[in-house]
Formats: sequence, structure tokens, C-alpha cells
Amino acid sequence: MNPAAIDVHTHVVPENFPAYAGTRPDIPWPAMAPAHACHRHVMISGRNYRTVSDGAWSVPRRVEAMGAMRIGRQALSPMPELLSYWLPADDAQVLLRYINDTIASMVARAPDRFIGLGAVPLQDIDLALRELEYARKTLGFAGVEIATHVNGVSIGDARFAPFFAAAERLGAAIFVHALRPVGQDRLVGALSEQAVAFPADIGLAAAAIITGGIAARHPNLRIAFSHGGGALSVMLPRIRHAWAMTPKALENMPEAPEVYARRFFYDCVVFDPLLVRLLIERYGASQIVVGSDYPFTMGEPDPLGLLARSGLDATVLEAICTGNARRFLGI
Amino acid sequence: MNPAAIDVHTHVVPENFPAYAGTRPDIPWPAMAPAHACHRHVMISGRNYRTVSDGAWSVPRRVEAMGAMRIGRQALSPMPELLSYWLPADDAQVLLRYINDTIASMVARAPDRFIGLGAVPLQDIDLALRELEYARKTLGFAGVEIATHVNGVSIGDARFAPFFAAAERLGAAIFVHALRPVGQDRLVGALSEQAVAFPADIGLAAAAIITGGIAARHPNLRIAFSHGGGALSVMLPRIRHAWAMTPKALENMPEAPEVYARRFFYDCVVFDPLLVRLLIERYGASQIVVGSDYPFTMGEPDPLGLLARSGLDATVLEAICTGNARRFLGI
Repeated sequence: MNPAAIDVHTHVVPENFPAYAGTRPDIPWPAMAPAHACHRHVMISGRNYRTVSDGAWSVPRRVEAMGAMRIGRQALSPMPELLSYWLPADDAQVLLRYINDTIASMVARAPDRFIGLGAVPLQDIDLALRELEYARKTLGFAGVEIATHVNGVSIGDARFAPFFAAAERLGAAIFVHALRPVGQDRLVGALSEQAVAFPADIGLAAAAIITGGIAARHPNLRIAFSHGGGALSVMLPRIRHAWAMTPKALENMPEAPEVYARRFFYDCVVFDPLLVRLLIERYGASQIVVGSDYPFTMGEPDPLGLLARSGLDATVLEAICTGNARRFLGI
Repeated sequence: MNPAAIDVHTHVVPENFPAYAGTRPDIPWPAMAPAHACHRHVMISGRNYRTVSDGAWSVPRRVEAMGAMRIGRQALSPMPELLSYWLPADDAQVLLRYINDTIASMVARAPDRFIGLGAVPLQDIDLALRELEYARKTLGFAGVEIATHVNGVSIGDARFAPFFAAAERLGAAIFVHALRPVGQDRLVGALSEQAVAFPADIGLAAAAIITGGIAARHPNLRIAFSHGGGALSVMLPRIRHAWAMTPKALENMPEAPEVYARRFFYDCVVFDPLLVRLLIERYGASQIVVGSDYPFTMGEPDPLGLLARSGLDATVLEAICTGNARRFLGI
């Protein structure tokens, strides 16, 4: 296994948040509260959204875990619930700036181990473009994390076109993560939305980037989808079939949908060798990157072990562990 | 290829509907209207829901198509939009009785070629149980088609438990089809909800049948999922990971989720040899059945060709073409 493996899917929660300094009442502004040893609660609107371990903010703890996981470098992105699209945009900008600066300070403490993926307030395109430029140019981040939708509007919607154009122009890597997923109202039983509904959610977002034309208009955009792109792997042949019968689809997809899908990157947070091999066959060995979802419980605790169980040849393994992530992140 | 292949996924639209004879104003009761040669429009609330070809109701046209597709027998189920869960239950019962009787008359015209899968008004469990009994005992149907949800409530919800218990008791096969899918609000571009969103929708329904405990409580229930079970193939390892970490999940899933998933049947309306092979590896060769979605444009025009391209050995191919469908349908 490659000790220089790059994990593109890990999350940060700051150890503390600044108090809300805005003017609006009842804003769901996050705060951290003490929990059991090495853990803290992320409190939002007075409720414990999630209890997270100190790997979320502690550089030494994270470096220790990376050793155990045989990961050389991690891309650091915010816990998705912190993306704050539901806050008033100016409040969100303040919070995301704090989070971006927190990630930058973690990168600065171990620049050979960490790469920054920031956050932007996509509910306001002008503010988002400014924060993207700050993340890329001032902080030197590889790019940013975005969610599958902004308050219910798919990221494939035309209103986000200027954001993707700017990302392509700035050479910013875009990491798309499931969040407040579609289908939450269809869950039954004790398992969480993250456990059950994320694959459908990320698949629909990836499909929308293709069907809405963003992929066709931005051939140099570097974009990666979390959780192996979720359901896209099973949606794609069906979309291809529909595309071939729908003349109007050519407006956004002059080439077949799989042409665009094979330009995207996909992490391997899929928990299954069959799916690792499906990703490689579907999208090409050059498009698959290591991911763990560290430090969360719905993460893959041993991504390199998963790859080892997937029966890959050495060249493919090497590409997935390092070269592909370098291309995605532009490092 | 096997000339006796059984296609479990085909749909019926009656050539005509009776006029609405109920008392409520503005009911979205369907009607058929003339279209171009060999086609009719399905009109609902004054709009053309879909233009369908005469294969939808014509026995000779259907038998002719089956010859070209090398299909020996078809299971006939209603076009899903006819399931009418959104009608007042007594109105729905009238409409579904008409549709069930229409399917029965098609089966009667060629009983060696067709098998009935009816419909029940799941918005009213008592009426649904009565119609299930009528379909099974009076019409001799193999079972019924149901949708992934009833007016937004997942079919895995506890309120539908009596229906599944009755289906198991009556030996009724249940064919679950996507309908008004989750994620319609996340579509971008010219492709339809059927083209893009069905895999996520059917995957979430299959997951709910597992996570909600129906699968565990009814080990002899015969249930098949349309479109290869959609996203379930990629959701299942993630659900498995969450199950292993969620003690409360044991209430509904005393065994691991894949144990239940491998009792279900899945059609191969997936448009892709990679996915056919994934279905076989994921669920077992004994659980995969032929499907076409005939006579709709989002169907697989050559399901046996798809299987031929999937590189299956003769025993597996034989099971998928005939034996598995016989077990699912109980024939």
C-alpha cells in the first residue's frame, strides 16, 4: 500500500465557533459544547446536531489517525451541515469565512499533510464568488466543497452557472457532498438519512450537472462526487437510453451522458469491493480517488483495505491512491 | 435464447375508461383520446399525461411484439400512474376494479401468454385487502403491482403492514414500481422524471422494506422491484455499515440487510451489462428476472439481447429467463 495515499473526503468541525454577532433573532448559528472525553457536541438551535470526535479539529489527532489509516495527505472540507445555505447570506459569509480560516490554520500547521477545500455561501452568487476567490487566492486552497442542492435547488440549476464558470477559470476543484438529502421523507426505521439517503441524493446531483449542461459547458472543470457518486452508477445507462430518444436533450448534452460522467472524479466511500470495481469500469480507473469521510462514524475506517480487497492491479491502485487525487486537486 | 422467457415488467393501459360515475367534482379520473395511428392519449385532468401505443391494450399487437422480443409470457400490470392512490378510495376502487377486470380479460384471451398483476387502493387498507383477495381468488392473478409510496408515505411504513401480511398469506406476488419519484424537484434539463429519478425512488422503497422490518416479518413474501431495484445496489453496503453500528436497527433487522435483499427479486430493466452482472453478484442469480417495461419508450426493447451481452453462463441465463420468474409469480 502507498503511504502517500491522498484522502480527498475528510471533514473538519472547528473546536469552537465565534458567538453570533449579527442582528437577526433565532439564527441556527452553530456552537460547540463539551461532551465525553475527546468529543464535543455540535449544537444548532439548541439541539445536539451531532457529537464529533476531536479528530474533527485536532491536527495531532488527525495525523495520528492518518498513520493508522496509511493516508499520507488529507483534503480538509467542512462538515456539510456547516455549509449554511439556509442562513442569511451575510451571516453565512461570516461563518464560512471563520471555517475557511480554521481549515487554513490546520493546513498551515502541517502543509505537507493537508490540502484545503473551503466553503462558499452559494445562496448568494456574488458573495460565493468572492469567497471562492479568497479561498483559492488568499488561502491557497485547492478548491471548495459544495452540497448537492442549495435549499432544495439542484446545483445543476442555471442560477449556479456563474459559480461553475468561476471555478473553472480559477482552477478550483469542486467537491460535491450529499446534504439534507432527497428522500428523507421516505426513510423508515432507525437508520439515519446519512446512512440510507445519501446515495440517491448525490446521484441526482451528479445527473443534474450532466443533464443541465454544466458538464458540457465546462470541460476543464474539476469536480468530484462524494460516496462514489451514489446512484449515478445505476442511473447513467438509463439516462443514456433517454438521451438517445430525446432530441431536446442535445441542447445540454451534445455528447452522450457517459462522456461527461467519465470526466468527473468519484471517491470510493462505498463500503464494497463490487462497487469499487463498478466505479472503475463505469468511469475509468483514472477518475477514482480515495475517500474516508473521516472522522465520522458513517465513514470508511480503512479505505486502503477496501481497495486491497477489490483485487486491483498495481497501476490502478497507484492511480487511485495518489495520481488521480493530484489531478483532481491540482497539486 | 429461451423462447419461453417470462417478462415480469410490462404495462397495460385500457383502450377506454368508463366515465366517472362518482359524486365529487374535479377528480383526476383518466380518459383516453384519439392520437396518431395505433396510439391514444391518456388524458388526466384535461392534460395529456402520456401518449401510448396500442400494445398497451391490444392482445394481438402485444403477442406480435412478444414474438419479436423472444418473450414467451408477460406479466401484465397497470401503467403506474393508474394506481390512483390520490383518488378518494371508493373512486379508486371503482377505477382499479375496471383495470383489474381489463387485465383479466386480456389474460383470458391468451392464458398461456399472460399472467395478471393487478392493483389495489392502498390509500385504504380495508379496500386494498378486499381488492387483493378479488385479484388473487376471483381473477386468479399472480399478485399485484404497488408503487414505492402512497401519496408520499413509503410502502415500508407500518400502516401498510396488514397489506404485506395478507399478500404473504394469500401467496400474492408483489411487484413494486417507481411512481411520482422522490427527487423530481432536483431534475434539471429535458429528461423526464422516469428517465432520471426512478432508480433513486425504487432504491429507497426497497431499502424501506428492509429497514422498516417488513422483510424480516414476512420471510415468505414474494416481492420484486422494478428497474433492477435502482439505487439499492449501491445503497446496500452503506446500509450494512450503518446497521452494524446502530443497535436499535436490530429491532427491524435481526439479520444483516443483505440477507433480506437477497430474498427479493429484481428485474433487469437496467440498460447495461455491467449492471446485470452487479445484480447477479449482489443478490444472487436466483433473484433476477426479465423485464422490459413494454410498451413504453423508457423500456428495454430487447431484454434478451441485454442478457446475451452480459456474458452469463447457460444455467444462469435459463434461471433468469424462466425459473426465477416462475418462483416469483408462483406459477
